Amino acid sequence: MCEYELDMSTIQNRQFKLTSRPVGMVKRGDFEFVTTPAAEPGPGEALVRVLYLSLDPAMRGWMNEGRSYIAPVGLGEVMRAGGIGRVVVSKDSSLAVGDTVVGMTGVQDYAIANAKGLTKVDSRLAPLPRYLGALGMPGLTAYFGLLDIGQPKEGETVVVSAAAGAVGGVVGQIARIKGCRAIGIAGGPDKCRYIVEELGFDASIDYKNEDVRAALAQHCPKGIDIYFDNVGGDILDIVLSALARRARVIICGAISQYNARESIQGPRNYLSLLINHALMEGFVVFDYAARYPEGMQALAGWTLNGKLKAREDIVEGLETFPDTLQKLFRGDNFGKLVIKVADE
Amino acid sequence: MCEYELDMSTIQNRQFKLTSRPVGMVKRGDFEFVTTPAAEPGPGEALVRVLYLSLDPAMRGWMNEGRSYIAPVGLGEVMRAGGIGRVVVSKDSSLAVGDTVVGMTGVQDYAIANAKGLTKVDSRLAPLPRYLGALGMPGLTAYFGLLDIGQPKEGETVVVSAAAGAVGGVVGQIARIKGCRAIGIAGGPDKCRYIVEELGFDASIDYKNEDVRAALAQHCPKGIDIYFDNVGGDILDIVLSALARRARVIICGAISQYNARESIQGPRNYLSLLINHALMEGFVVFDYAARYPEGMQALAGWTLNGKLKAREDIVEGLETFPDTLQKLFRGDNFGKLVIKVADE
Repeated sequence: MCEYELDMSTIQNRQFKLTSRPVGMVKRGDFEFVTTPAAEPGPGEALVRVLYLSLDPAMRGWMNEGRSYIAPVGLGEVMRAGGIGRVVVSKDSSLAVGDTVVGMTGVQDYAIANAKGLTKVDSRLAPLPRYLGALGMPGLTAYFGLLDIGQPKEGETVVVSAAAGAVGGVVGQIARIKGCRAIGIAGGPDKCRYIVEELGFDASIDYKNEDVRAALAQHCPKGIDIYFDNVGGDILDIVLSALARRARVIICGAISQYNARESIQGPRNYLSLLINHALMEGFVVFDYAARYPEGMQALAGWTLNGKLKAREDIVEGLETFPDTLQKLFRGDNFGKLVIKVADE
Repeated sequence: MCEYELDMSTIQNRQFKLTSRPVGMVKRGDFEFVTTPAAEPGPGEALVRVLYLSLDPAMRGWMNEGRSYIAPVGLGEVMRAGGIGRVVVSKDSSLAVGDTVVGMTGVQDYAIANAKGLTKVDSRLAPLPRYLGALGMPGLTAYFGLLDIGQPKEGETVVVSAAAGAVGGVVGQIARIKGCRAIGIAGGPDKCRYIVEELGFDASIDYKNEDVRAALAQHCPKGIDIYFDNVGGDILDIVLSALARRARVIICGAISQYNARESIQGPRNYLSLLINHALMEGFVVFDYAARYPEGMQALAGWTLNGKLKAREDIVEGLETFPDTLQKLFRGDNFGKLVIKVADE
């Protein structure tokens, strides 16, 4: 197809570059939106037409200065983001023009990426945005966090926050697959109905309209064996006060705290760990890179046999990026939040 | 000896009873000091002449209302405390008059105790107060917390707070025995000198006179593999910011927070667990009751071969109890704090 025999200099690449370190909530002014000609891939690289971009809570941390599990995005650099796209030029034998690939594409129309950093996916198995959600990093995050750290045993009670989100929804469904009771905490009646009726959670707690402490006491009469935390803050504190003995608290994220202007709120009830001989362990999915194939195989299997469902919240247009990111931090998305950058 | 053929009604028993739930720092007015005749032990029980009482940070928690790993001391009840003493009347075949025993005697001259709750000790192996410290619950706390949760490996860096205290001093010495580097955080130059020169720690940090963050960076250039926390608060936060990957944070206590009038300060840097794939796990020594013999054997062996040293801070007189307990929370004790109740 002539589409792939492009004159590079004619391809216009729109990019969001980080221009300042956000203070508090991220805002449009923290980025500049520029258009430049696409670059030529070098040996071992490919040029990828980005189709969908993943919006992730972790992005907020990448914008901050300081030591973390990954270097911060430099000022003047294209904002880091995961994405799925199609190879339009390949300078590596492992990739062909037309391949569908996921990887860290950045917030732009066209990404130059090392072939080693791109993973080919089967575009017939599932809608493409799902590879940024339940069949992507969020799904793997749920899989390794719950199974490796949580070590769920049949009959245990698993609580997950941000339960209608990309990670939380998968956590609850895997908990059910493993024979556990799954209780999801989410914001609003629609999300709560969704996780019970669509995803099969045993119960939901609407933190915006219910007393979370009372609801946990009702749904977890023997205490919480596993808590998968995506939010931090007050909900983490309430859950800590309701742990069962030998509970495992999995620290995956703290979206309630990422945009805090003041220092982060630590879990005041952490001495519940002492009383209950409980543990709290953190992780990032990259720690499990060597085991991604195992995780992908399991997630794909459950998707194909109907045990793992998911939903994506698709916003149109690369140019919406800063506003769409704010939507994520307001919790206004319903399912995995992605930006559609171009038609498939 | 006729000492043991007592007319019970002539034995005067001084007791400290808890009369109010302390708010903030514990004070003398939270107790009443009464004298009553000693009671007669029933079948399976013994009457014990208390010789030394153990002053422990955990006592503060026992005075509070609410669910914990152990029921709170009831108002009007004798204040709970560990002690060592001599059997003066026995109504159980397992104990003879004159036996030296440790157990939860309470803050009083004479305790009636179920024989099952008393452990005979060899009074020739070590000075009696040591059975309340390095050879008692504090020693076992150090042993199980460091070895079972911490899982130290040769060459790792172990940091312990309250390092000159009853638990901390043993933690550092066991770390050294296991081939780790031991860094102790303690208050004041005397304690810091003691843990390095007497106990053999590799280094000390005087939190009252040094910049703890800078000192940790200096002494733990590769990060902290294991942190045994007895204090909570700001020091826990600073240590969290200096963890190595896959670090283990052992939550044993939080003495800096026990007398807080406001809600406890949670660890603001807990997301360091996420970044470093680290864990934080709490415990109380009672969780390991089934393994006490193993722990005691190890501690006694190291004491006899000179690898495990300890020091006690002995205050004379049962009547000093509330003030001596305040001394503990001020950190003014140097080594295991005990009250001498009667001559041996």
